[in-house]
Amino acid sequence: MRPNDRAADQVRPIKITRNYTAYAEGSVLVEFGNTKVLCNATIEENVPRWLKGQGKGWVTAEYGMLPRATHTRTRREAASGKQGGRTMEIQRLIARSLRAVVDLKAMGEIMITVDCDVIQADGGTRTASISGASVAMADAFQSLIESGKLKKNPMKGHVSAVSVGLLGKDVLCDLEYVEDSAADTDMNVVMTEDGKMIEVQGTAEGEPFSHEELMALLESASKGISEITAAQKAALAE
Amino acid sequence: MRPNDRAADQVRPIKITRNYTAYAEGSVLVEFGNTKVLCNATIEENVPRWLKGQGKGWVTAEYGMLPRATHTRTRREAASGKQGGRTMEIQRLIARSLRAVVDLKAMGEIMITVDCDVIQADGGTRTASISGASVAMADAFQSLIESGKLKKNPMKGHVSAVSVGLLGKDVLCDLEYVEDSAADTDMNVVMTEDGKMIEVQGTAEGEPFSHEELMALLESASKGISEITAAQKAALAE
Amino acid sequence: MRPNDRAADQVRPIKITRNYTAYAEGSVLVEFGNTKVLCNATIEENVPRWLKGQGKGWVTAEYGMLPRATHTRTRREAASGKQGGRTMEIQRLIARSLRAVVDLKAMGEIMITVDCDVIQADGGTRTASISGASVAMADAFQSLIESGKLKKNPMKGHVSAVSVGLLGKDVLCDLEYVEDSAADTDMNVVMTEDGKMIEVQGTAEGEPFSHEELMALLESASKGISEITAAQKAALAE
Amino acid sequence: MRPNDRAADQVRPIKITRNYTAYAEGSVLVEFGNTKVLCNATIEENVPRWLKGQGKGWVTAEYGMLPRATHTRTRREAASGKQGGRTMEIQRLIARSLRAVVDLKAMGEIMITVDCDVIQADGGTRTASISGASVAMADAFQSLIESGKLKKNPMKGHVSAVSVGLLGKDVLCDLEYVEDSAADTDMNVVMTEDGKMIEVQGTAEGEPFSHEELMALLESASKGISEITAAQKAALAE
Amino acid sequence: MRPNDRAADQVRPIKITRNYTAYAEGSVLVEFGNTKVLCNATIEENVPRWLKGQGKGWVTAEYGMLPRATHTRTRREAASGKQGGRTMEIQRLIARSLRAVVDLKAMGEIMITVDCDVIQADGGTRTASISGASVAMADAFQSLIESGKLKKNPMKGHVSAVSVGLLGKDVLCDLEYVEDSAADTDMNVVMTEDGKMIEVQGTAEGEPFSHEELMALLESASKGISEITAAQKAALAE
Amino acid sequence: MRPNDRAADQVRPIKITRNYTAYAEGSVLVEFGNTKVLCNATIEENVPRWLKGQGKGWVTAEYGMLPRATHTRTRREAASGKQGGRTMEIQRLIARSLRAVVDLKAMGEIMITVDCDVIQADGGTRTASISGASVAMADAFQSLIESGKLKKNPMKGHVSAVSVGLLGKDVLCDLEYVEDSAADTDMNVVMTEDGKMIEVQGTAEGEPFSHEELMALLESASKGISEITAAQKAALAE
Repeated sequence: MRPNDRAADQVRPIKITRNYTAYAEGSVLVEFGNTKVLCNATIEENVPRWLKGQGKGWVTAEYGMLPRATHTRTRREAASGKQGGRTMEIQRLIARSLRAVVDLKAMGEIMITVDCDVIQADGGTRTASISGASVAMADAFQSLIESGKLKKNPMKGHVSAVSVGLLGKDVLCDLEYVEDSAADTDMNVVMTEDGKMIEVQGTAEGEPFSHEELMALLESASKGISEITAAQKAALAE
Repeated sequence: MRPNDRAADQVRPIKITRNYTAYAEGSVLVEFGNTKVLCNATIEENVPRWLKGQGKGWVTAEYGMLPRATHTRTRREAASGKQGGRTMEIQRLIARSLRAVVDLKAMGEIMITVDCDVIQADGGTRTASISGASVAMADAFQSLIESGKLKKNPMKGHVSAVSVGLLGKDVLCDLEYVEDSAADTDMNVVMTEDGKMIEVQGTAEGEPFSHEELMALLESASKGISEITAAQKAALAE
Repeated sequence: MRPNDRAADQVRPIKITRNYTAYAEGSVLVEFGNTKVLCNATIEENVPRWLKGQGKGWVTAEYGMLPRATHTRTRREAASGKQGGRTMEIQRLIARSLRAVVDLKAMGEIMITVDCDVIQADGGTRTASISGASVAMADAFQSLIESGKLKKNPMKGHVSAVSVGLLGKDVLCDLEYVEDSAADTDMNVVMTEDGKMIEVQGTAEGEPFSHEELMALLESASKGISEITAAQKAALAE
Repeated sequence: MRPNDRAADQVRPIKITRNYTAYAEGSVLVEFGNTKVLCNATIEENVPRWLKGQGKGWVTAEYGMLPRATHTRTRREAASGKQGGRTMEIQRLIARSLRAVVDLKAMGEIMITVDCDVIQADGGTRTASISGASVAMADAFQSLIESGKLKKNPMKGHVSAVSVGLLGKDVLCDLEYVEDSAADTDMNVVMTEDGKMIEVQGTAEGEPFSHEELMALLESASKGISEITAAQKAALAE
Repeated sequence: MRPNDRAADQVRPIKITRNYTAYAEGSVLVEFGNTKVLCNATIEENVPRWLKGQGKGWVTAEYGMLPRATHTRTRREAASGKQGGRTMEIQRLIARSLRAVVDLKAMGEIMITVDCDVIQADGGTRTASISGASVAMADAFQSLIESGKLKKNPMKGHVSAVSVGLLGKDVLCDLEYVEDSAADTDMNVVMTEDGKMIEVQGTAEGEPFSHEELMALLESASKGISEITAAQKAALAE
Repeated sequence: MRPNDRAADQVRPIKITRNYTAYAEGSVLVEFGNTKVLCNATIEENVPRWLKGQGKGWVTAEYGMLPRATHTRTRREAASGKQGGRTMEIQRLIARSLRAVVDLKAMGEIMITVDCDVIQADGGTRTASISGASVAMADAFQSLIESGKLKKNPMKGHVSAVSVGLLGKDVLCDLEYVEDSAADTDMNVVMTEDGKMIEVQGTAEGEPFSHEELMALLESASKGISEITAAQKAALAE
């Protein structure tokens, strides 16, 4: 049995709070159970140098964890003088996922940076980040429309993500930390709201996985994604 | 007139939420108006190398700002590869202030690190940090007592801090961002709960200040501190 | 038609040269067409600090590209003062892939580091690195057996990797640089010699991909992997 | 009794040597007893980027200690790859203090950098630095007047600084190293030549201090400052 | 007797392979016995900022060693976050040596960077680097002539380098690693093809050396250089 | 004619001031004309890790330039976050030169670090550093003898250094900055007091140099060295 009597294919309670902080153009606190990530979207009318003059926009992301988001304290990356490999990997994934649902050419020379800062970490921080960042980005684009800087929203739809895993024979959806540590295979799936795949990253931590197991993981992810997408839409409808 | 019709000697509404996150031994969200700082205290049974074997404890602090805590985005220090001078100055101040109210010899070889991370910044982040960190540290010591690792609390009392400033002829207490930017003199005062001074840092940003002005600033700070101390005690009484 | 009249499911000519340099315990130059990576395995009788005293071994990897492995010169990471996100991501992937086929408990407190340095880059450097590193690691374990430090080889089998991609409607195996740049979806697949999956990383660079496309990509990868595995075995049989 | 039979309110012998090195536009060796700091002012016709085009100038400062300025060798900051928190705190203080006595708008787009390098450290290096830097800056402005680049001196007066402290019940002025280490409270006071305050930084190292003690410290500082100001004027009159 | 029955004044077998990699404008693998260095020359139509607008070109070099070029693994400089002193010293030497045989004014505003990466290190990597880089640079200039960007080759001749050393009473030419470690004096000599000196760097590792010994070392170097020059010319004639 | 009517083979006025600062075990200000370097020798009873337990000592050196030692301000290396290639090259040369005259086995497990900090730079800072550091090191060893930690001085003699150069046809000894900038060839020579060579580093900045020119440079250096050695001995005799 999973913690809190969760069914194998059940995602944790999802809570998406918009306008969580006052200054960002999009500010979302996303909660997947005990995992809490603050996603702040910033608009800058200035693209990276290599993109200047092409009339296109850019979307990027940064990721961080507060030192005590975790059970024991993690060293502050600013103090150690560099971002670790895990941080870089995650922020690159978030940024790619967001760009996959944006028509960069329709943005004009504007850059959106979404900062995903983990307040509390109980597994699935990267997938929660993507799911929350999509909403924060939507709010940022809306503010550009309201201020007359954009005519229409360049987002092609929402993007959301979930982790799934194999624990022994069981396929579990939306792993929390204790499950994630014990899983043989851990897979992060990023999808569009119409169920197409943007990113699939499956890793065998213990035994390699078979084709059939991969299929089962994807099916579980697909179901989880549809619940997350619904939560995103509900939050934006408020 | 001050924003929100505040009186010159009035501090902003103070809110202190304990157990804000789940894993830290002390976790406090402190709010001074729109300034919000998360103060997480971590206990480690391990002192810095230079202190080992002396039977004494240590208290330290780190400070950070989320990139979009501010009106425009600030570059992430982890990405730029170092903590700036302002960050270092503030975290050294927080740490000294906390140590001033702790009997390090009575702690045993334990280290407490308080991470102060600014979620939203509207002036006075360092003074809010000190005021919140004192409560988080108290909770951490309480957990050591409850687990039987300490017999009595090594804190000699609370420490709190407030900023005061001169705006033209006016002495203002607990400056928010727009006031802080305009002030001629800005002073941070750190005090014990019985009104003695731990740290006084006054800086003339515009005109130098006179002895009389310094006296008026200290008087205003002293009144503000007593309100903050009351809020700390109320929070811990819950 | 693909460059050099390759069929869609055909891998490039693979060449695996063992003992390429003189000092490493395993030294392999792996070539996938014009992509050339030198994989040097080093044995150290010393595990990372966090693993000491557990009687287990460790396998890790580092990845680098010579500045002019690419069409235009890439800045030397040693000169810029840090390894980029792409480098970190790749070396973490190589290391995980290698560990997936090793029984760490059977190694004793020994560490193997495989350095994968790209001499020439024409797409697929990470998959070539994994495929070559597996052979270099095998040679390193063999040297431990020959010197009497290990009784039996702790490798459970070979690991190899290939990239596959969607270019329009076509599923292509083992992408070279011009194909990789143009592909809508790029997927790296790491497998054991008996066809189980260790790592699957698919990314939509353009349009999101469907479940059917994912299936087709995996099928193509599986066929490519079997050819690479054969090349690894042939090389080790020499 | 203090070392060298100093009275409690007596500053150490002050020596200010102008034109100490040959190339800087202002070069001052300032000595407060055994504390020796070389203050070199550099003129550059180039302001920081964020100030360009506003017709205003800028004054900044950097601080360093030779590795063996101290009783035991301190690690060279250039070798450890970053400036420590104490260094940053001090150089920010020096720079603010200097700017407080300069009319930046009257400078034109010129930047003055004062490098304060401690040759020998026996307490009070930051206050000696400020006191010496004021003279070096005055010489640099004079050279701009002589070369016709400025019509009149934009300095509003001199700035000087002194440390005062509480050792038990005693208020001591201009602490040397052994006194500083033992003091309960240490306060640095920066003043204009007409006795107004630019910066007041008091820190309780041991017991918190009372309002009365603060008053006594300020009075002692004020007397010390007047002697330092006199030394600055005498040096510039030569 | 030297390893492989080499005579005291005999250089190791030299092999210079041009077009070793596919993309660099000049790509040379140079081998001095077991020492193997890949020298890749890159052309960029862009000079360093301080040289812009003067109509002159620039030649620079970078040096690196693959971690397992050596008998035991050397830490990767990209991972440790900086280039060591030895690396910097060597790349500055290579760059100076190359510039000494180029008429920078005749190049136009073009920059050539030669990357010397050591694949296998058995002593004399810096001298092999210089000798190989000269050929790679020659090929790069030739490509500029062929593409019509230069009318004539701005090289005044070849540059080559050799190490010589004193081992007891013996003067040895082109030291390999075991000899280099044991030598009392080690000297690197860089010469033009007509026997003039560009750089002489002699270091007493054990006993200081006399004027007569210096003369003997230079004579041996001069003979070695003539053989290396011949090998360079033969390679370019192919 | 040279500046100040110096003859071609004449060194600048040399001044060696011992006990220049108060805390270092050896503290020497060395002046070669306008070049002034402070050389502070520190004794630590602690050798580098790789040398521990061998009963041998170590001598090392660090080099730095105050930002305004030069005609225009040089960026502070502590602020830029790393030591440049020139700094590393020089401090490695100073350290090798000092070790060449010390019997490390006779030192016991003691380390001497000589910090050479350039107060004013007018050419020849590395050669002045070596010449001054030799005296500072001698004083440090003397203090070890006086404190009973060493029985006899492990120095085999003094080491000194001079720069010589070719300016057109002229061989000049002890170049000052304007000469150094204009020289075709610049050579630094480090010698023992009995005229044997420790290090010879000759570099053609313009035209390559011939064997005859090298001979003339060495002869001039040899004469200069004897004068510097005399100044060292005179200083130590005081």
